[in-house]
Amino acid sequence: MSDLPQKVTIKEEGPREGFQIEKGPIPTDRKVELIDALSETGLKYIQIVSFVNPRRVPGMADAEEVVKRYRRKPGVRYTALWLNEQGFRRARATERVDIDGSIILATSDPFSIKNQGADFEQYAIQQEKQMQLYVAEGVERIRGGVMTAFGCNYSGDIETAQVLKCVARLLDIAAHNKVSLSYIGLADTMGWATPASIKRVVGAVRERWPDLKIALHLHDTRGMGVANAYAGLEMGVTQYDACVAGLGGCPFAGNAGAAGNVCSEDLVFLCEEMGIETGVDLEKLIDCASLAEDIVGHPLPGSVKVGGALSKLRRAVQQAKAA
Amino acid sequence: MSDLPQKVTIKEEGPREGFQIEKGPIPTDRKVELIDALSETGLKYIQIVSFVNPRRVPGMADAEEVVKRYRRKPGVRYTALWLNEQGFRRARATERVDIDGSIILATSDPFSIKNQGADFEQYAIQQEKQMQLYVAEGVERIRGGVMTAFGCNYSGDIETAQVLKCVARLLDIAAHNKVSLSYIGLADTMGWATPASIKRVVGAVRERWPDLKIALHLHDTRGMGVANAYAGLEMGVTQYDACVAGLGGCPFAGNAGAAGNVCSEDLVFLCEEMGIETGVDLEKLIDCASLAEDIVGHPLPGSVKVGGALSKLRRAVQQAKAA
Repeated sequence: MSDLPQKVTIKEEGPREGFQIEKGPIPTDRKVELIDALSETGLKYIQIVSFVNPRRVPGMADAEEVVKRYRRKPGVRYTALWLNEQGFRRARATERVDIDGSIILATSDPFSIKNQGADFEQYAIQQEKQMQLYVAEGVERIRGGVMTAFGCNYSGDIETAQVLKCVARLLDIAAHNKVSLSYIGLADTMGWATPASIKRVVGAVRERWPDLKIALHLHDTRGMGVANAYAGLEMGVTQYDACVAGLGGCPFAGNAGAAGNVCSEDLVFLCEEMGIETGVDLEKLIDCASLAEDIVGHPLPGSVKVGGALSKLRRAVQQAKAA
Repeated sequence: MSDLPQKVTIKEEGPREGFQIEKGPIPTDRKVELIDALSETGLKYIQIVSFVNPRRVPGMADAEEVVKRYRRKPGVRYTALWLNEQGFRRARATERVDIDGSIILATSDPFSIKNQGADFEQYAIQQEKQMQLYVAEGVERIRGGVMTAFGCNYSGDIETAQVLKCVARLLDIAAHNKVSLSYIGLADTMGWATPASIKRVVGAVRERWPDLKIALHLHDTRGMGVANAYAGLEMGVTQYDACVAGLGGCPFAGNAGAAGNVCSEDLVFLCEEMGIETGVDLEKLIDCASLAEDIVGHPLPGSVKVGGALSKLRRAVQQAKAA
């Protein structure tokens, strides 16, 4: 077990991922209630809203209002997502969002064209402009992201070389602008990854850029989320995006989060039970998962919120022995 | 990846695990329908019923009838579960069950007493008698099983030494009776295992008995099932019990299989996508998972049946390229 990291950082994306996908309108106060509860778990990063077109994502039309109302806890970084300069400026204007910039590329041209209306080169030029904006605006933390790093519904399997090409270009854009990226996130955007491909891709990036910090953004579309995170841990990856209760999935009955992010409390369970520090109180996070289920009004896919933490069982065993 | 096995065996337990736990009565014909569909997937072992007290397990009251009606496919072994001599004789009497015997111990005395009304020593004596019965009856395949090998709700964490003690005793019982156990199954009966404990326990058993074949029986109570199977693969374990669609779980709405076995099709996906041969046709198994959901009438927890196999997506990409 000596290869596993001693400590990992889990970036919570549930409020943003979860509430933007729900069909029914969720009252602003309930969104704030979940964010405030998550603030008490020990999580150090919480992505709370996205600043996107309210006509396209009506669930985020109240982003400014959520940002106005949530309670900031010292030591926690409250971030947001945006897709263009307008969104960035909306986030800035609130003065209550911690501004983390990002530049992103996709390994797959068909996906890039479908989703951004831009092929690799066009998209890279947009990211160059995005980077210039961040520099001009004094944004200090900027990360890189590679979408569809492990497979793509439109391109199929992805060669490791394509991932390396994206990472190289992101680092080039950063270098042109005299920026050092805080890390590169590799995203399994469509749930194609297995532990084997996680190891292959992370290994290839690590080999070429040994000092680059790598993060994983994993989807649980095919039930591989926790196993893929474990493969990441075995590769020494110390940062993971995750969503409480597995928020963010397709709203299929009974398997509501099949396409969602890896579930935060399941990931905390994995780490803590293997002696890897997350800084997160699992029992409090499980309470947040139950709260999230209550807020969305339908079952969410996380397992540990049903199976329960082992800490309670261990305490009961201790008490029985002492009695 | 060179450490992963080239080939694994998945023993399907869905019909037995799943139908014995369901509350509503399931028509015998529908049970037979699932078994017959599973026979066409390439699975080589299917546990189809249990011969237990119909007053305690009403869902298995029709065991003889199921066994009478299912269609035997050559090359597939159709097994059953029983807990005592009476059950064994019922299975035998059908003449349509492949008789695989087992002797079992639990690491945890409180669990052993609660579940079998016998502590470790008393239970071991029962298993000795069970073994004598198998020998007298000419049963050729007999396996050993260790319950609560990775933790127990009544005893808490389990020392590796306790697992070794169980394995040693099972091997002793076999040796007394001049029997060679076909393998030892290590069961995470209550969903306490993590990839780290899988590696620790499997490693310790392997170190002491290098030639002993090990199998894993994993529960997905806390979402670790697939990750634990992956840890098993990394340790070279080539045999896994699993349930189609994750059948067998507690019937919680929306997370029906939280306490069920690891899901067969998710496990097949894990293996096949990493180049490990299972002999199972994933798309056919996914159809069985949908059938299982239709039969029980509520959502079941497997992910791949929702996310889908990658083979279809790969074919579509190929067709698009060819066009």
